[in-house]
Amino acid sequence: MRITFLGTGAAGGVPRYGCNCAACERALANPVFVRRPCSALVEDGDTCVVLDAGLMNLHDRFPLGSYSAIVLTHFHPDHVQGLFHLRWGVLGNVPVYCPPDSEGCADLFKHPGILDFKPQTKFESFQIGSLTFTPLPLIHSKVTFGYLIENRHGVRFAYLTDTVGLPPKTLAMLQQSNPDGLAIDATDPPSTNANAVGGNHNDWNQALALIEQIKPARAWLTHLNHRSDTWQISNNPVLPEGVQVACDNAIIELQ
Amino acid sequence: MRITFLGTGAAGGVPRYGCNCAACERALANPVFVRRPCSALVEDGDTCVVLDAGLMNLHDRFPLGSYSAIVLTHFHPDHVQGLFHLRWGVLGNVPVYCPPDSEGCADLFKHPGILDFKPQTKFESFQIGSLTFTPLPLIHSKVTFGYLIENRHGVRFAYLTDTVGLPPKTLAMLQQSNPDGLAIDATDPPSTNANAVGGNHNDWNQALALIEQIKPARAWLTHLNHRSDTWQISNNPVLPEGVQVACDNAIIELQ
Repeated sequence: MRITFLGTGAAGGVPRYGCNCAACERALANPVFVRRPCSALVEDGDTCVVLDAGLMNLHDRFPLGSYSAIVLTHFHPDHVQGLFHLRWGVLGNVPVYCPPDSEGCADLFKHPGILDFKPQTKFESFQIGSLTFTPLPLIHSKVTFGYLIENRHGVRFAYLTDTVGLPPKTLAMLQQSNPDGLAIDATDPPSTNANAVGGNHNDWNQALALIEQIKPARAWLTHLNHRSDTWQISNNPVLPEGVQVACDNAIIELQ
Repeated sequence: MRITFLGTGAAGGVPRYGCNCAACERALANPVFVRRPCSALVEDGDTCVVLDAGLMNLHDRFPLGSYSAIVLTHFHPDHVQGLFHLRWGVLGNVPVYCPPDSEGCADLFKHPGILDFKPQTKFESFQIGSLTFTPLPLIHSKVTFGYLIENRHGVRFAYLTDTVGLPPKTLAMLQQSNPDGLAIDATDPPSTNANAVGGNHNDWNQALALIEQIKPARAWLTHLNHRSDTWQISNNPVLPEGVQVACDNAIIELQ
């Protein structure tokens, strides 16, 4: 199973528009540090799944027919905005597996165009080609799923963006599954009391604590904001063995 | 007054995603024929206004501080989708003049970020730098304004995308204003009975009929879809004197 991090940024990405903090200046100077809307590509043999659709150039990057399906974690704009244009395609049909969110985003349900939305049920697995996806409820301000993704050889990857903590049943399932890889929301730097209130995302320490509980073979912190990158530049934190900060365009091979 | 057509496409643009019609194949082969989301830049001395925000790379193309304001015709996604990312900027404030649409689009009003939405009233003029904007109600599936834009030297440009026909008072005001330039919705090729029903946009003939009634010095057909371009390729239609088909990146000087 091959994972490509298409984007590893929180809403607004890195650089943030108009920002001159250390992380944003660094990303403006060197594209390797840019964080685009959080999304990934999962490939396994002939199966190719786009996880979230926030990339603004999704239609240019993925020609019709070049992927099996789109799978959405939730309907916040930074995770679906690439669909507003892509949906007006012709001569095709794009399966879009998603949480059962009756609102969707803007008029996507009213005018789906070529998108075939397929709302899923929590903990009920579905199949896309050679991959089995199990939707895991997360804790966020909109109905949100993480996914446990397994191929026919038993390789397992968990994708858990946009959550603050994890519901007990989701955590238990992840602990039982022994994932080979796990990508998890680590939007904010370690919180102070001032910014911990009302959070909708993990901070650095919450993400590491969850990794410690789940014990995947390898883990990646993703969905990072510019404050996290600036904090890393200043503090150069040491991560536990097997844990890395994700970066855009990085490719992971899980076997 | 200088107008730049940033985009001249209907929803889905040209090429449409996955399409192999003559117009889409032409645009894929040669970027000069691409039609991006319908939008324009209006410049007059130091005043610089972005008309509609559908460009997906709006944040890259227009750094914070490089323009005076954004003016929206309406809140359909192809006219505002560039705001979903841009709003998360920092260290600034972007005035966004718009129609009084209580819904907006997705969560733009709930999470405006750096956007300062300024709903306007039909026929009540407002000022941005050296330019006077008069909102003109149009006929569309969402609350939609066209704008009559006038500089201090009496140069007048009317921007009328996303309408099928014109309300009588809007038409009368345009006829009285003798615009030097007019850009108007001509989304579809001349309609047959099959595709005329339930229209939300002018076709080629409706646009030309309105131009004939308003009698601007010069006029541009814009917001065109791929079927219109294919029809033009096949029929090579002759336009009245002073009327042109708009194309992306074309610059007009009005004096």
